[in-house]
Amino acid sequence: MPMIAHPQSMHFADALPLQSGALLRDYRLSFETYGQLNADKSNAVLICHALNASHHVAGVYPGQEKSEGWWDNMIGAGKPLDTDHFFVIGVNNLGSCFGSTGPMHTHPDTGRIYGADFPVVTVEDWVDAQARLLDALGIEQLAAVMGGSLGGMQTLSWALQYPQRVRHAVVIASAPNLTAENIAFNEVARRAIQTDPDFHGGHFYQHGTVPKRGLRIARMIGHITYLSDDVMNAKFGRKLIAATQSEAERNFFYSTLEAEFQIESYLRYQGDKFAEYFDANTYLLITRALDYFDPARAYGGNLSLALARATAKFLLVSFTTDWRFAPARSREIVKALLDNQRDVTYAEINAPHGHDAFLLDDPRYLSVVSSYFKSVLKELEGQA
Amino acid sequence: MPMIAHPQSMHFADALPLQSGALLRDYRLSFETYGQLNADKSNAVLICHALNASHHVAGVYPGQEKSEGWWDNMIGAGKPLDTDHFFVIGVNNLGSCFGSTGPMHTHPDTGRIYGADFPVVTVEDWVDAQARLLDALGIEQLAAVMGGSLGGMQTLSWALQYPQRVRHAVVIASAPNLTAENIAFNEVARRAIQTDPDFHGGHFYQHGTVPKRGLRIARMIGHITYLSDDVMNAKFGRKLIAATQSEAERNFFYSTLEAEFQIESYLRYQGDKFAEYFDANTYLLITRALDYFDPARAYGGNLSLALARATAKFLLVSFTTDWRFAPARSREIVKALLDNQRDVTYAEINAPHGHDAFLLDDPRYLSVVSSYFKSVLKELEGQA
Repeated sequence: MPMIAHPQSMHFADALPLQSGALLRDYRLSFETYGQLNADKSNAVLICHALNASHHVAGVYPGQEKSEGWWDNMIGAGKPLDTDHFFVIGVNNLGSCFGSTGPMHTHPDTGRIYGADFPVVTVEDWVDAQARLLDALGIEQLAAVMGGSLGGMQTLSWALQYPQRVRHAVVIASAPNLTAENIAFNEVARRAIQTDPDFHGGHFYQHGTVPKRGLRIARMIGHITYLSDDVMNAKFGRKLIAATQSEAERNFFYSTLEAEFQIESYLRYQGDKFAEYFDANTYLLITRALDYFDPARAYGGNLSLALARATAKFLLVSFTTDWRFAPARSREIVKALLDNQRDVTYAEINAPHGHDAFLLDDPRYLSVVSSYFKSVLKELEGQA
Repeated sequence: MPMIAHPQSMHFADALPLQSGALLRDYRLSFETYGQLNADKSNAVLICHALNASHHVAGVYPGQEKSEGWWDNMIGAGKPLDTDHFFVIGVNNLGSCFGSTGPMHTHPDTGRIYGADFPVVTVEDWVDAQARLLDALGIEQLAAVMGGSLGGMQTLSWALQYPQRVRHAVVIASAPNLTAENIAFNEVARRAIQTDPDFHGGHFYQHGTVPKRGLRIARMIGHITYLSDDVMNAKFGRKLIAATQSEAERNFFYSTLEAEFQIESYLRYQGDKFAEYFDANTYLLITRALDYFDPARAYGGNLSLALARATAKFLLVSFTTDWRFAPARSREIVKALLDNQRDVTYAEINAPHGHDAFLLDDPRYLSVVSSYFKSVLKELEGQA
């Protein structure tokens, strides 16, 4: 029987000071919890999400069989992060579009929808907001923080911003900052959205429009970077949509407008689906948070100096075919932690699926995370 | 003193049958020639261009110092392809936007601008059109055909379609077909153009619009794939536009709209520039020709069987950091040629510049091509 998830929401009256200098007041955070918080509140694990995910990390909603959380293969009873032992918290980031306060909500100062006026939030701001949620839940120290991709950046930032509150940091398929190429892909996606005539400078809500064209293009670009060349060739290759018994016998359409290769219709489908539910301003905000994240920046680019503050134990995982957040980027973090004599476990998983691998069922990957949390549990029990 | 280029144009009254089954009639090809055709017409070298290039391969136009041809570093007196010895021909492909008949010209049947009705042309069609130009110039056999990227595909196709007319084929930074990822990038670029409201189904000329938004996005995507991650990091890294003495000291703009990283303004600039001169329908046509090219298709995917027809001697060059047309793709061609006991020279150049390297001044690359053409010349002279 699947675990049932119960979305919750918490209001915060005290203004949150943001890195930009702006204040965000009267905001809400959507979250879910799974498992039971133990008596000494020492078994909590916070999950940080990436671009298009949410607080709905595991389980299903009542009566909606297909509503599994985005990391349901990782989190639940008997799963690598075992909710029979850990109290797991998923939280939707500020600026996102799944319940927490974001650009589609009303600005308390003006009474108008934020739109483009929603303040730019950073990874550090998200972590600060998550810390306030933990305060409200009465959780002083986390057994672990865990996240993949942008979620891994938040995890790393937790270990730097609140070192005393994090016992373990599990950073998966992540990087200490974006490369120029990463920023470039984000920028193209943003320009596609911003130059869509339906964007209206980010105030499309009051125009009754949605910049779907731009969102579609953004998602198509994203999808290409989540997958590896190998897995795309294996899955789609040069196969045509209207495949006959012999592809070679079929004539091409000789059309520049119609989707003809399977990879084309796959991307169009992904783009269409995404444009139906994702908020355009959220896309801009979250990619900008990715661009800005760079803990070494204040240390002249020296990551070892930047990570000296971290006292948590670390598990890092990367995937060989991930060209978005390549293993070399995880190794930079590993090296910087080792330079500080920190306790680091690192697994580089030989997986064909590119960046997407962190969401998939690779048994070696799941077993690495499972083993790690077994040791976290042992440590907790030894301490109790 | 720079070589002076003289653009020429030739009209073809006989209809060209295209692979799609359509006929193209009353078309023109723009071309340029450099050097002198020798008495027995044996020293001609045809240059095939890639996506956004043209027949203006080398030299400058009178009074326009900065109008160097796109391969001016490769072709000219004393250059790797030496116009003191070879008669070099550059030709603009059908469907392009630099003079040869294309979507912005008038359909002779309807008297209206072709627009989206310009027939889809393939690599094979281009080669057929080029062959007719050579017929008109009285050139029966080429000393060599040479091209990079999509130009390399035309070169390979020349060796298959007109084996008796090609003595040497110089295929640079190319591939025997596109991967799923290559097609995916083309498709995103095409969708950006096609979904631009100014595209009007490809008939934007009569609406007095240009789908510049789409063209900008297409070019930005293209640019990312032409460069390597390494060269982007070396050139731009995470540097900000308004760099102060200490980047770390500067505050971010905290804006999702403004370009803030140098890589962002570089891409925007490239996109803007491109949208000013390039035709949207041409972009669609040329990327489609790339998608379709696949000489092995008619042979059940067996490239060795497909290349059995080729009798030319081959030089292939690839660049280690080219992830658009990776060295492995060139090696597929090399292997297929060797399976047929063909004469093949292959150079894999260790260069940081990605796909763009084929247009740049890497001395090892230029010296490989230079040596090759010296041997072609020796062969010609031995034969004379």
